[in-house]
Amino acid sequence: MVQLTKATRRHTKDHNSRLVLQTIYEYAEVSRAELARLTQLTRTTVSDAVAELIGQGLVEEVGLGRAAIGRTPTLLRVAEDGRQMVVVNISSQELQGAVVNLRGALHGRATRPLTDRRGGAVLDELYPFVTELVERASGPLLGIGISAPGLIDMGRGIVQQTVSFHWQDLPLGNLLQSRFGLPVYLARDSHAIALANYLFGPHEPTTNLIAIKVGWGLGAGIVLNGQLFFGDDYGAGEIGHLVVDEGDLPCECGKRGCLETLASTRAIVGRARSLAATDPASLLNRYAATPEAIDLEAVLKAFLAGDAAVRQVVAEAGRYLGIAVAMLTGTFNIRRIVISGRIAPFGELIRERILSELQRRVLPNLADAIELYVEAQGPDTILLGGAALVLTSELGLVRMIRRSAGPTL
Amino acid sequence: MVQLTKATRRHTKDHNSRLVLQTIYEYAEVSRAELARLTQLTRTTVSDAVAELIGQGLVEEVGLGRAAIGRTPTLLRVAEDGRQMVVVNISSQELQGAVVNLRGALHGRATRPLTDRRGGAVLDELYPFVTELVERASGPLLGIGISAPGLIDMGRGIVQQTVSFHWQDLPLGNLLQSRFGLPVYLARDSHAIALANYLFGPHEPTTNLIAIKVGWGLGAGIVLNGQLFFGDDYGAGEIGHLVVDEGDLPCECGKRGCLETLASTRAIVGRARSLAATDPASLLNRYAATPEAIDLEAVLKAFLAGDAAVRQVVAEAGRYLGIAVAMLTGTFNIRRIVISGRIAPFGELIRERILSELQRRVLPNLADAIELYVEAQGPDTILLGGAALVLTSELGLVRMIRRSAGPTL
Repeated sequence: MVQLTKATRRHTKDHNSRLVLQTIYEYAEVSRAELARLTQLTRTTVSDAVAELIGQGLVEEVGLGRAAIGRTPTLLRVAEDGRQMVVVNISSQELQGAVVNLRGALHGRATRPLTDRRGGAVLDELYPFVTELVERASGPLLGIGISAPGLIDMGRGIVQQTVSFHWQDLPLGNLLQSRFGLPVYLARDSHAIALANYLFGPHEPTTNLIAIKVGWGLGAGIVLNGQLFFGDDYGAGEIGHLVVDEGDLPCECGKRGCLETLASTRAIVGRARSLAATDPASLLNRYAATPEAIDLEAVLKAFLAGDAAVRQVVAEAGRYLGIAVAMLTGTFNIRRIVISGRIAPFGELIRERILSELQRRVLPNLADAIELYVEAQGPDTILLGGAALVLTSELGLVRMIRRSAGPTL
Repeated sequence: MVQLTKATRRHTKDHNSRLVLQTIYEYAEVSRAELARLTQLTRTTVSDAVAELIGQGLVEEVGLGRAAIGRTPTLLRVAEDGRQMVVVNISSQELQGAVVNLRGALHGRATRPLTDRRGGAVLDELYPFVTELVERASGPLLGIGISAPGLIDMGRGIVQQTVSFHWQDLPLGNLLQSRFGLPVYLARDSHAIALANYLFGPHEPTTNLIAIKVGWGLGAGIVLNGQLFFGDDYGAGEIGHLVVDEGDLPCECGKRGCLETLASTRAIVGRARSLAATDPASLLNRYAATPEAIDLEAVLKAFLAGDAAVRQVVAEAGRYLGIAVAMLTGTFNIRRIVISGRIAPFGELIRERILSELQRRVLPNLADAIELYVEAQGPDTILLGGAALVLTSELGLVRMIRRSAGPTL
């Protein structure tokens, strides 16, 4: 919404202070004089803003720069450990966590397996896990960033529905906030991945981006004009439980033909198990004791060994992902699409199938413009997405982190 | 993109001047004192801004208001004919046009049938049509707003592709701009309808909205946070040529199973013709001399007479629209969805089919939140959308038009 409000001196001051912080972020090390030139603010305004930021512990003075003539200027940089964040990703199999500093450097990484995925049981694991991470922080904490699968009401910090966990209306944000006394930001995992790709991704910067997380579950996150787009109920990109097939394959959510049942790694493993069961001579049986014991790793081995039937199983998942990409292209017309998650090792075949469906399903002008990446991205990606949520919400730092000296995926 | 730039005095002045204009728009008639209170600007700042706006002919003084004590204040209002706009919609059958004032009042409505829809032929009709409208204006012109079907590059004013017109890269914006010497804004018809529904629609205001135009062609327009969302190549909402069916029904675009071939009024008429041809006893044959002569009006008559087979034909189009609405809900999660265009007279059945597909195809949380309207909207809707484009681009007037004394659809 376009909010027009009076432009007051206080607004101007905050605005200028943010501008100075972002500029220091972007240029890594700059002098006050350079800041004045870059921001076009007066020297006095810059000095005041810098003094405030130093006082807050967000900026620090470092060694001396060079000057053509006159006094050698002091350089300024973001105090990278001036604030830290605790970030946790709740995945279907485990908790992953780390402490992240203002520059996006991760330390104190930890994981904890989840055997029982009911809400209460996850909380019993989550509390000590977060406590441990809080203790690992070496600087003041800015907040906690949590990513989880499912429909998440970010505004109220509630996990509304996570089909595979059977969660309903779990007030995770408030629970953590009251226990740890820190601001908590909660996001859908696919949203966190989209934000991380936008801010830290290895490709040319772009204003709009779609990330599709394809693992045991499936969902998309959308960045529009540099910001996560949530939709009216934080459900934007909830394509995993969108029906895309008239067949009768049942989904955990109760419907039939959901994208997640057809294109996720779970779908691939499921089809591979059927394949192994019906064909005892299948290569798949070499990599697992029984058809039921086949996991994604076994499928990948058979795939890499060139098993034609397994390639067909993967190609079928790719075809359904192509339907999803076509649908996102026809609705959003965003060029940059990143497929990330445990499906990535099947890379080229998945990519090829998606592009061929895309050509078949949308106008050539739109299909030709797509930049599609299928990329394995470790847990650091999603953890950085969680950190970015805290960083943008608490300090208003957006986008420019991208061009900083920070990490790239 | 979040653009942080220096907040200068000039920015503040422009900002405040826009704020004053928008506030006058919103409150219809206000005094300078009320403006100062509403905007929280100083009396001097308000007076300066008002003087500038009066000088530009955008605001005028009217009769006297009431004051509890002291001098009776002069009221200000937008000079509704201080600027006018010429707007034209290029539809598959005709040109529709009007002159619109700052309050969205239309006059000088005109139509001109299109017999030849090739680019050159349409231009031969369009030039004299626009000339005639320019002559009908009774105040200075702010610009020309044009809506047309197809993929339109708004930035460069080029119709990139209109499948049903066989247009490719027609530089309509520049052609009109150089001929009439006025700013020209060009938009896809579905985008104009979305904007008109957002600004002038009869329902409760909302920040996000999707309008799906369903007539001979089919496309969607999306308003996000009060602004049209175009995507990277102005292709957002280009769902008409998205393949949604594995059948082999050919489309004019060269693909098979496009939504437009299955859910548009053209699809309904096509299926009705087949029906009439295979069943000579069909009610449809009462309303047309031959099956080939059946048009939408004949189908509607048979539908209203309760013909079961015709209802089935309409229901089938509704089912495909339901697939589209489910897809838009799973990707955008926008609650307000307006179906508009020549399909509207089939209202309740279409609505019912869409809602039932929606329940079947997306998570209940998302499906239950949808506010769906199926509404007949005359050519004024799309013309107002064209006017809104000019108004927002030239004067920055957005959203508040909505609560003004202006028209509602």
